[in-house]
Amino acid sequence: MERPANPRLLGIDFGGTKMAIGVGDTDGRLLASERLPTIAEQGAQQALTRALDRACELAEQTGGTIVAAGIASPGVVHDHGIELAPNVPGWEQLRLADAVRAHLNLAHVRVTNDLKAAAYAELRLGALRDADPGLVVGLGTGVAAAVTVNGEVLPGRHGAAGEIAYGLTDLSWPPRLEPMLEATFSGRALDELAQRLGVDGRAAGLCAAAEQPGPVRDQLRLRVDELARQLVTCCLLLDPQRIVLVGSVAGNDLVRELLTERLTHTLPYPPEIVLSDFAQDAALLGALVMATEAQPAVV
Amino acid sequence: MERPANPRLLGIDFGGTKMAIGVGDTDGRLLASERLPTIAEQGAQQALTRALDRACELAEQTGGTIVAAGIASPGVVHDHGIELAPNVPGWEQLRLADAVRAHLNLAHVRVTNDLKAAAYAELRLGALRDADPGLVVGLGTGVAAAVTVNGEVLPGRHGAAGEIAYGLTDLSWPPRLEPMLEATFSGRALDELAQRLGVDGRAAGLCAAAEQPGPVRDQLRLRVDELARQLVTCCLLLDPQRIVLVGSVAGNDLVRELLTERLTHTLPYPPEIVLSDFAQDAALLGALVMATEAQPAVV
Repeated sequence: MERPANPRLLGIDFGGTKMAIGVGDTDGRLLASERLPTIAEQGAQQALTRALDRACELAEQTGGTIVAAGIASPGVVHDHGIELAPNVPGWEQLRLADAVRAHLNLAHVRVTNDLKAAAYAELRLGALRDADPGLVVGLGTGVAAAVTVNGEVLPGRHGAAGEIAYGLTDLSWPPRLEPMLEATFSGRALDELAQRLGVDGRAAGLCAAAEQPGPVRDQLRLRVDELARQLVTCCLLLDPQRIVLVGSVAGNDLVRELLTERLTHTLPYPPEIVLSDFAQDAALLGALVMATEAQPAVV
Repeated sequence: MERPANPRLLGIDFGGTKMAIGVGDTDGRLLASERLPTIAEQGAQQALTRALDRACELAEQTGGTIVAAGIASPGVVHDHGIELAPNVPGWEQLRLADAVRAHLNLAHVRVTNDLKAAAYAELRLGALRDADPGLVVGLGTGVAAAVTVNGEVLPGRHGAAGEIAYGLTDLSWPPRLEPMLEATFSGRALDELAQRLGVDGRAAGLCAAAEQPGPVRDQLRLRVDELARQLVTCCLLLDPQRIVLVGSVAGNDLVRELLTERLTHTLPYPPEIVLSDFAQDAALLGALVMATEAQPAVV
């Protein structure tokens, strides 16, 4: 296959509230990017179509042609559909890789889970370049993780490694089949806690109010403690050299401080705990990394 | 180096109560084995010396000469000593690989943690030959785990991957710096529970009494539930294809049944859960596997 004059790589990070689109050169350097609202309530297909149409326009604006794409999606991504991704109606029915191939008339497409994409970014460009094993913990709207071993992201048997949202926070039986850790500690869970405590500004407002000692801080601390308990078990199993925190809630200094204190005091071998350098862009950059690895070889 | 006429491999599994010694051929097939009491209260050195002396005698009885050794030890094994192995006084101060090399006048010695040795046995000879990732859970006197990925046992950054005994069972602060999960669920913990409930026969007696519905069963179930909670988090992180249970407590049908029920009902992707084929010998066989991989190449 002949390579076009200005080959471009596409990365997209699909989320429940926004979609991040990036066009890069063949080394994965970002040339243009944009965020669009997902408008989840209008369903999966319109979101996908809008994102891919916009991606083509962005690529044209850079004067190039897309030769490979990396796609990050919530949930557990299979060829035949996506599991554990309930936030956008219809998303679980998407054959995402096929749909992207068809829409862009593109052979080289790689799709993975958003936290695993973020882990690729950390491995190749970020805080896990020189650390092994690595643990990426995503504290955004939800909570999830990704594991890196020997320079690769661990898929797990069903592509579901890192889905810690389903960790048990109590032992009632029969179990509630819901993501119990996510209901305790996540952006959404902290939004709800803020509302319940009458604190303005959702999760961010809650964290700000918790800067001062008092009941809000005590409540936040209990939530961080449950997250820490689950991460202690993760660290004991993996013995990671470094934990990289990504996502909006991870950006809060107090959350990181409380979490670091708990992990450092309870683990026999505490890992380093750092904030991702990529702010909200880890999964997008990881999608571009995947595109660099998916692109056709230059003959 | 010239190879002796009948080269033999040595495997030893050092435990807090017994030491298992095995001599095999260069393919790792067991030719002779023996168990000795550790007599922990008399210290590390006498145990090590007795085991190595007996190993030489066993090798002689098979008409051969030891050319390589694999050693399984409790704790986190380093060249300069062993961490988290408090059960035999003086054990933590041993430079175990050096001591074995010196005593046997042997260059090819490999030492690892006992659960990691068991995982080698499962990977090369047992239930993890055709499963990836794999999780080995040891329910013996203590509780520990080992992780297998891509046909290798995960060491972790400090050689401490799998030390789940330190999982948190409550969130009191400051934390108690002790193996909290192990204090809740392990052979020793169940021995203590049996005594407290007035049940004869220690852990085994407790499990037998729990066959009938009643308070003993309820108490055992609570303990299994806490273990299950921690293993749920391990499984979420790793997404293993198969869990292999090893150790004396794992041999109890009721324990396996309660644990399997809990994991199967709470995980989105439940792994297969099987009992090791090797009864008490997984770590010993793994030590022999390590010796096969450590032996000098035949020229």
